[in-house]
Amino acid sequence: MKYSFLNDYAEGAHPTILQKLSTTNRIQQVGYGQDFYSLEAANLIKEKLENPAAKIFFISGGTQANLLIISSLLLPHEAVISAESGHIAEHEAGAIEATGHKVLTAPTKDGKLQPEQLRPVLEQYSMRPHVVKPRLVYISNASELGTIYTKNELRQLYRFCQENNLLLFMDGARLGVALTASTNDLTFPDLAHYTDVFYIGGTKNGALLGEAVVFNKPELCKYFDYQVKQKGALLAKGRLLGIQFLTLFQTDLFFELAQHANDLAQKIARELENLGFPFLLNSPTNQIFPILSKTQIEKLHQQYSFLEWKQVDAQNTAIRLVTSWATQQSDIDRFIEAVKNL
Amino acid sequence: MKYSFLNDYAEGAHPTILQKLSTTNRIQQVGYGQDFYSLEAANLIKEKLENPAAKIFFISGGTQANLLIISSLLLPHEAVISAESGHIAEHEAGAIEATGHKVLTAPTKDGKLQPEQLRPVLEQYSMRPHVVKPRLVYISNASELGTIYTKNELRQLYRFCQENNLLLFMDGARLGVALTASTNDLTFPDLAHYTDVFYIGGTKNGALLGEAVVFNKPELCKYFDYQVKQKGALLAKGRLLGIQFLTLFQTDLFFELAQHANDLAQKIARELENLGFPFLLNSPTNQIFPILSKTQIEKLHQQYSFLEWKQVDAQNTAIRLVTSWATQQSDIDRFIEAVKNL
Amino acid sequence: MKYSFLNDYAEGAHPTILQKLSTTNRIQQVGYGQDFYSLEAANLIKEKLENPAAKIFFISGGTQANLLIISSLLLPHEAVISAESGHIAEHEAGAIEATGHKVLTAPTKDGKLQPEQLRPVLEQYSMRPHVVKPRLVYISNASELGTIYTKNELRQLYRFCQENNLLLFMDGARLGVALTASTNDLTFPDLAHYTDVFYIGGTKNGALLGEAVVFNKPELCKYFDYQVKQKGALLAKGRLLGIQFLTLFQTDLFFELAQHANDLAQKIARELENLGFPFLLNSPTNQIFPILSKTQIEKLHQQYSFLEWKQVDAQNTAIRLVTSWATQQSDIDRFIEAVKNL
Amino acid sequence: MKYSFLNDYAEGAHPTILQKLSTTNRIQQVGYGQDFYSLEAANLIKEKLENPAAKIFFISGGTQANLLIISSLLLPHEAVISAESGHIAEHEAGAIEATGHKVLTAPTKDGKLQPEQLRPVLEQYSMRPHVVKPRLVYISNASELGTIYTKNELRQLYRFCQENNLLLFMDGARLGVALTASTNDLTFPDLAHYTDVFYIGGTKNGALLGEAVVFNKPELCKYFDYQVKQKGALLAKGRLLGIQFLTLFQTDLFFELAQHANDLAQKIARELENLGFPFLLNSPTNQIFPILSKTQIEKLHQQYSFLEWKQVDAQNTAIRLVTSWATQQSDIDRFIEAVKNL
Repeated sequence: MKYSFLNDYAEGAHPTILQKLSTTNRIQQVGYGQDFYSLEAANLIKEKLENPAAKIFFISGGTQANLLIISSLLLPHEAVISAESGHIAEHEAGAIEATGHKVLTAPTKDGKLQPEQLRPVLEQYSMRPHVVKPRLVYISNASELGTIYTKNELRQLYRFCQENNLLLFMDGARLGVALTASTNDLTFPDLAHYTDVFYIGGTKNGALLGEAVVFNKPELCKYFDYQVKQKGALLAKGRLLGIQFLTLFQTDLFFELAQHANDLAQKIARELENLGFPFLLNSPTNQIFPILSKTQIEKLHQQYSFLEWKQVDAQNTAIRLVTSWATQQSDIDRFIEAVKNL
Repeated sequence: MKYSFLNDYAEGAHPTILQKLSTTNRIQQVGYGQDFYSLEAANLIKEKLENPAAKIFFISGGTQANLLIISSLLLPHEAVISAESGHIAEHEAGAIEATGHKVLTAPTKDGKLQPEQLRPVLEQYSMRPHVVKPRLVYISNASELGTIYTKNELRQLYRFCQENNLLLFMDGARLGVALTASTNDLTFPDLAHYTDVFYIGGTKNGALLGEAVVFNKPELCKYFDYQVKQKGALLAKGRLLGIQFLTLFQTDLFFELAQHANDLAQKIARELENLGFPFLLNSPTNQIFPILSKTQIEKLHQQYSFLEWKQVDAQNTAIRLVTSWATQQSDIDRFIEAVKNL
Repeated sequence: MKYSFLNDYAEGAHPTILQKLSTTNRIQQVGYGQDFYSLEAANLIKEKLENPAAKIFFISGGTQANLLIISSLLLPHEAVISAESGHIAEHEAGAIEATGHKVLTAPTKDGKLQPEQLRPVLEQYSMRPHVVKPRLVYISNASELGTIYTKNELRQLYRFCQENNLLLFMDGARLGVALTASTNDLTFPDLAHYTDVFYIGGTKNGALLGEAVVFNKPELCKYFDYQVKQKGALLAKGRLLGIQFLTLFQTDLFFELAQHANDLAQKIARELENLGFPFLLNSPTNQIFPILSKTQIEKLHQQYSFLEWKQVDAQNTAIRLVTSWATQQSDIDRFIEAVKNL
Repeated sequence: MKYSFLNDYAEGAHPTILQKLSTTNRIQQVGYGQDFYSLEAANLIKEKLENPAAKIFFISGGTQANLLIISSLLLPHEAVISAESGHIAEHEAGAIEATGHKVLTAPTKDGKLQPEQLRPVLEQYSMRPHVVKPRLVYISNASELGTIYTKNELRQLYRFCQENNLLLFMDGARLGVALTASTNDLTFPDLAHYTDVFYIGGTKNGALLGEAVVFNKPELCKYFDYQVKQKGALLAKGRLLGIQFLTLFQTDLFFELAQHANDLAQKIARELENLGFPFLLNSPTNQIFPILSKTQIEKLHQQYSFLEWKQVDAQNTAIRLVTSWATQQSDIDRFIEAVKNL
C-alpha cells in the first residue's frame, strides 16, 4: 500500500475525539443541534473569538457550508465574487449556481483576493437590472494554493467590502493551518473584526466531519436554521458535531493538530529546497508544491500517492504534497529518503 | 434528568460501531465514498438484497436522502405524491419544494398510501401543460405512525405505479423496525422487487448518522453522484458512513437492533393495554401511541420526556413513545411502574 | 364554427388599443419599460389609486405576475397560503414551487379566504425550523369561482394578516369584473389600503396581454426590477404594455369593458334562472355556473364551446359560461334562444 | 428629440403586422398557443426550414427563450458554454444561474465560438463528480458584436459538438440580419442541419415582441410545453405571437426587414470609412462600431442617441450604431451629414 500525501482527510479522527464520542455515547440528548455539547462548543468558540454576539452552526462539510452561507446571504439577483481558483468557482459541481446565484470570478496569482481584483468586477456588473449585483466576497484562508492572508491584507479587504456594500465570507476549511503558519499574524479574534462570516474546518483538521460556521453579526443569520433544515444539513444526532468541536476547542487541540501538519510539511519543503528543487509558489501551510521532473514523479509514484498539480514546462510538473494531523515524523523521514534516492 | 422516549436518536451509536471506527482509524483511505469500507458495505447490502445490479449511495440524513432522491428522479414539471402525514409533506421545511417540485398529498387513515388514494390525484393532475405531472410516489415504511406495509400491499402498490408510469420510492428511515415487526411479511429482497428506490435508515437504528440509498435499477441513478456533490452531501471522509453500514450489515446487527427496539415498545404496549389504556392506532413497531388523560400526562411528564401527539377529546391525548437500540429493559420496567402509579 | 363561451381571452384587443398602437408606432422610445407610455400609465394608475407612493410594473401574464410577486416577497423558508381553488395552487404547473416555495392550501366553499381558514394553517406550520413559515396570503378577486370580496371581508382579512405578520396579495387577473359587479362595494383606492400588492388584469379585460402589478408599499419591491429581468419577463418593447394600460386607464375604458362583460353574463344568468335552471353558486361577475343535464349539455355543445366545470350528480353538471368585452348582445340572444329550444 | 441609433427595438411593429392584428381581431381562437395563426406560422417555418419534424414554440422575448431552452435541455449537474461576450454570460441578470446552471465562458476576439475555444473548457471540466459537466454550447448569430458564422464555421462547430456529446443552441435574436448579410453563406435550411435548437428573433426585426424557438429534433422538447407554462411564458392570447410570425413568414417580410436594416447600417459604415474613421471590428450586419474621438462623440450626442461601446485609447472610443426595419434613408442621410460636419 502506497503512503498518501494526497490530502488531509485520508484517516479517521484524532483519537481524543473518538474517545470523547465513546465516553458520552449513552447520555441522552435532544436532537438537531440543541444538545449540551453543541451549545457548549459554540460557547467556547465565541469566547475564544471574543465575540459573545456571534452565532455558531455546525455543518457536515465544506461544500454544504459554502452553499448554505452564500445562498442564505444573497437575494435572488445578487452574486458572489471568488478568486478563479476558489473552491466554489470550480470544484463544487455548480453547487452555488444550483442555489440560483452566479459566481463572478477574478484572476489572482496566489489564490488571494485583493481590492484591486474586485474593482473591475464591480464596474463590469453595475448596469441595473441587466446584470447581477455583486454582494458577497468569498475568500479562503488558507487558500487552495496554501497561501494565507496577513492581518493587513484582510483588514484592507474588509474595509473595501464595507465601503462597497459587500459582505466578506472566509472559507476556513483550512483555517487551522492558516492561523498556525509561521508567517501568520492573524489572531482568532481578528476574524470577528475583519470578516462577516467564516467557518472553522474540522474535517481537514482531525474531526470525522464538521465545519463550525460563525456569523459575526447575528442579523446575518436570522433564518439560517431554516436553511440548514431545508437543504438537508440538519443532523438528528447533532451531538456528533458538537462533541468533536468541543474536544477540539476545550483545549488547544485544534491549533496543535494544525501546527503539527504545518511543521511536517515545512520540514519536507526545507529538505527539498536544500536538495535544489524549485517550488511553484511559497506556501507556509500544510500544502506544498515542489517542482519535479516527470521521471522523478514517476519513480516517487511507485511508493507514494500525491497530486500532479500543474505542468510547469515540457519536462517538469509541480506536485502537491499535503500533510495532516495524522502524518508522522517517520512518514516524512521515509519520504525525504525516497526523494534523495531519486 | 428525565428519561426520554421522545425519539430514537437521543443517544450516540451502538458500541460495536464506535469500536470499528477506532480500529480502522489510522488506515489511509481515498475520500468521497470510494473507500474500502463503503465499497464493501455496498457489496454486502447488494448481496443481502439479492440484487447485484443495485447501486448504493451513503447519505448523512433522511431529509437529505429524500431531497436528493426526489429531485434527481423528477423533471422540472414533475411532482411527487405523498401521504398527508408523509415526512416530506410537512416536516422538512419545504425541502422538496426548495428543489422546485410540488408535493401532492393524499389523506390516509394510517399513514399508508394505497392505489385508491392515488387515483384521484392522477385524475386531478392531468390537464397538460397547466398542471404538474405526478411521477413519483413517496411512501415510508415504517410510516410516521409506526404502521407497516404488508407484502401484498406493497406489491399491489408497485403494480399500480408501473401501470401508471409512476416510480415508487420507500423512505426507510425506519426500515429496520418495519422489517423486524412481528406482523411483517416483507423480506429484505422483496424491496428490490417492489420498489424502484429505497433507503436503509442508520441514524434511527444505531448509527451516528447515515442512510444507505439503494437504487434497484441502475438507470435511475446515472448522475446521482453529481447531485450528491452539488447539494453538499458528499463527505470527504466517506469512510465514516461506510464503516457504520459495514458494521451493521456484516453481521445481523442492523436487524437485531431494530428487533430490540420493537420488542421493548411492544412490551410497553401490552402492559398499557392490560392496564386498560386505549391506543390511537395499532402500530407493531417502536413507536406506540397510547391515549392518556391530561392529568396522567402531566404526572408522567415530571419523570419522562415524550411527545403529545394528538388531542383525542377534551380530556384525553394520544402520546408518542419511542424506543430504540439504546433503550434497556430496566428503562421500560421503571416506566411501566410509573404508569401503574398514576 | 362554434361560438365560444370558454373564456375571456378568445379574441384580440379592444379596437381602441389597436388604434393607439398604430398612432404611436413610429415614435422612438427607450426600451425595457422606461418608455413614456409606461411611465404615464403608471402615473395614471397611482393617481386613480390615490397612492402616490405605489410602484407599478407591467408584466405579460398572470402566472408570470404571480410567480414574480410571490418569489420576490418570500425568503427561501417562507410559504404562501392560497385557497385550494386558487390559481397558483393547481393550475400553474407548479410555477410557485419551481421558484422554491411551498403553496399551503385551505379549503373554501366559494373560492374566498377568510381569517378562520388561515388560523389552522398558521397553527400547523409553527414548529421552527422543521416546517415552512407562512408569510404571504394569496387571494384572487374576482375568484376562480366568479365570487368577489366585500370591503368588510377584505378589511378584516388584511387586519388579520397584519396581526400575524402576513403579507396580503390580491391576484387581479379578473379585477375589472370584480370592481364593476353589481354587489361590489370595494373602490379602486380601497385596494391601496387593504392589500400589500395586487395586480390589474389586462389580458382578460381587453388587452392583447398585460397585467399591471401594483406594490402599495415601495419597500416591498426594492429589487423587483432585477427579478423581472432575471425571470425573462422584461420586454424590450415595454411600450407594448404601457400603451395598452394607458389606453385602458386614461378614460374609464378598463371599467366599461368589465361592466359590459358582467352585464351580459348576468343577463344570461337571469334568463336561465327564469327558465328554472339551478346554479352551482351565485357569482355576480362574468363567469356563471348553471347546472344542466347531460343531454342538454350535449345539444348545446353542438353550437357552443364552454367548459364542463363540475359534475353535480349522475345526471347533471355545472357548466361555466364566460363573457368578455368582446361578447355582443346578439351573441347572448342567440345563446338564450338555443337554451330555450333545448 | 434626439434620433436614436441605440438599438433595434425603439419603435413599434412593422405596419403589416399591426394591420394583420386588426383584421383578425374579432375572430375567436383557442388560447395558449393552440390558435390557428400559431399553428399556421409554425407550419410555414417548418416548410421554409425543410424540416417537417421540427417543433416550434413562440416565446415573448430573448432572455425568456434563452432560459427556457437552456434549463429544459440540461440536467441539474450540466452546464452551458458561452463566449464571454454572450448575452447569457453577462447581460441577463443571472437568468441562467437562477435556473440552477453554471455558465462556463471562453474568451473570443469577435464574439464567435470555435472548437479551439471549447476544448480547454472540456478539459478543465472533467473531474466527475467535482465539477459541472459541459453539455450545451450557446452561440449567437449575428453575435453581440454584429459578426456572423459562415457555413463552414457552423458545420465544423456542430461536428465538434456531436463528437463531444454537446448540444448546439443558436440564439437568433439577430438571426434576420445574419442571414441577409452580404457575406453570409448560411441558408435558412442549414440551421436545421447544423444546430440542435435555435430561435428566430421577432422583437429586433419588426414584431412587437416574440421569438420563434425551433427544436430541430423533437426528442429535445418532449416537455418544453410544461416549462413554458411553469416559467410564466405561456400567453393566454398566444395568437398575438402567432399572427406576427405568420405575417413575417407568409411572405419574405422577415428577410426584407433585416436586409433593409443591414443595408442602411452598411451605408453608414462605407461613408464613415470613406471619411477615414477606423472601426473596432468588421461587422456585416445592422450593428457597426466606428471609432470616434471624445470630442466628436460629444458633438454627435447632441443630436443622436447611441452607445459608447468601448474605450479604445485615451482619446478615442468605439461607439455602437444600430439600424432597424424602421430606420429610413433620410435618417441616415442626416446622420452622415452630421458626421461630415464634425
